[in-house]
Amino acid sequence: MDRYRQGPLKLKAQLFCGTETAIGPGKAELLDAIDREGSISAAGRAMGMSYRRTWLLVDTMNRCWAEPLVEATAGGGASKGAHLTPCGRRVLDAYRALEAALAKAADGPELEALTVLLAGGPRPRRTPGRG
Amino acid sequence: MDRYRQGPLKLKAQLFCGTETAIGPGKAELLDAIDREGSISAAGRAMGMSYRRTWLLVDTMNRCWAEPLVEATAGGGASKGAHLTPCGRRVLDAYRALEAALAKAADGPELEALTVLLAGGPRPRRTPGRG
Repeated sequence: MDRYRQGPLKLKAQLFCGTETAIGPGKAELLDAIDREGSISAAGRAMGMSYRRTWLLVDTMNRCWAEPLVEATAGGGASKGAHLTPCGRRVLDAYRALEAALAKAADGPELEALTVLLAGGPRPRRTPGRG
Repeated sequence: MDRYRQGPLKLKAQLFCGTETAIGPGKAELLDAIDREGSISAAGRAMGMSYRRTWLLVDTMNRCWAEPLVEATAGGGASKGAHLTPCGRRVLDAYRALEAALAKAADGPELEALTVLLAGGPRPRRTPGRG
């Protein structure tokens, strides 16, 4: 999730399809995990998510794009797996490229101006008052 | 909050001070509201937040930067207000400039590649299955 966290800065890019998130940091991480693990359930376990939650995230992605991003690997059986489709690969690559473009753009004078004003850590909390 | 939402894209930039958010979309909106309303309580009301939550957000900001971002307006009394400090103005301006730089960087071929692959709206949800 903190792939593009630069020092104190955290960036998040989400693409919406209606009111649903078509891709964002969590779904991109899930696509990476499916690509690596070769199955939806193993990817979910690797990310510490329930199978139901993992499946719902995949289903949302599969409904939000021109074509599904994840499909069952042919063959079936008890160890039936899943893999990224060509559309899934294109979406993941373009999303990572977008994140990289944002990270590059963030590394400029605006962030420098903010960083020099940041305290090293928060000072202790005061007690509430009116103001 | 959707100030820099471009079509299907939503961007979020947060700066952290330790584990606390020193500035992000919500806190920037609150600074704008304090600047406009001239008081913390009126700003919170304008954003539909409780006074306690509003005050805690201001307190976090005031502890996270080299100097406080918001201070009580001199004079006091029942209608005592609040305003941005010079540091608060600099932080808000630099954060808005960072958001603008990100929005500009996002408006490129990576977003175009994603947008052409997005469906117009999500297709209906399937029933869960293994894959």
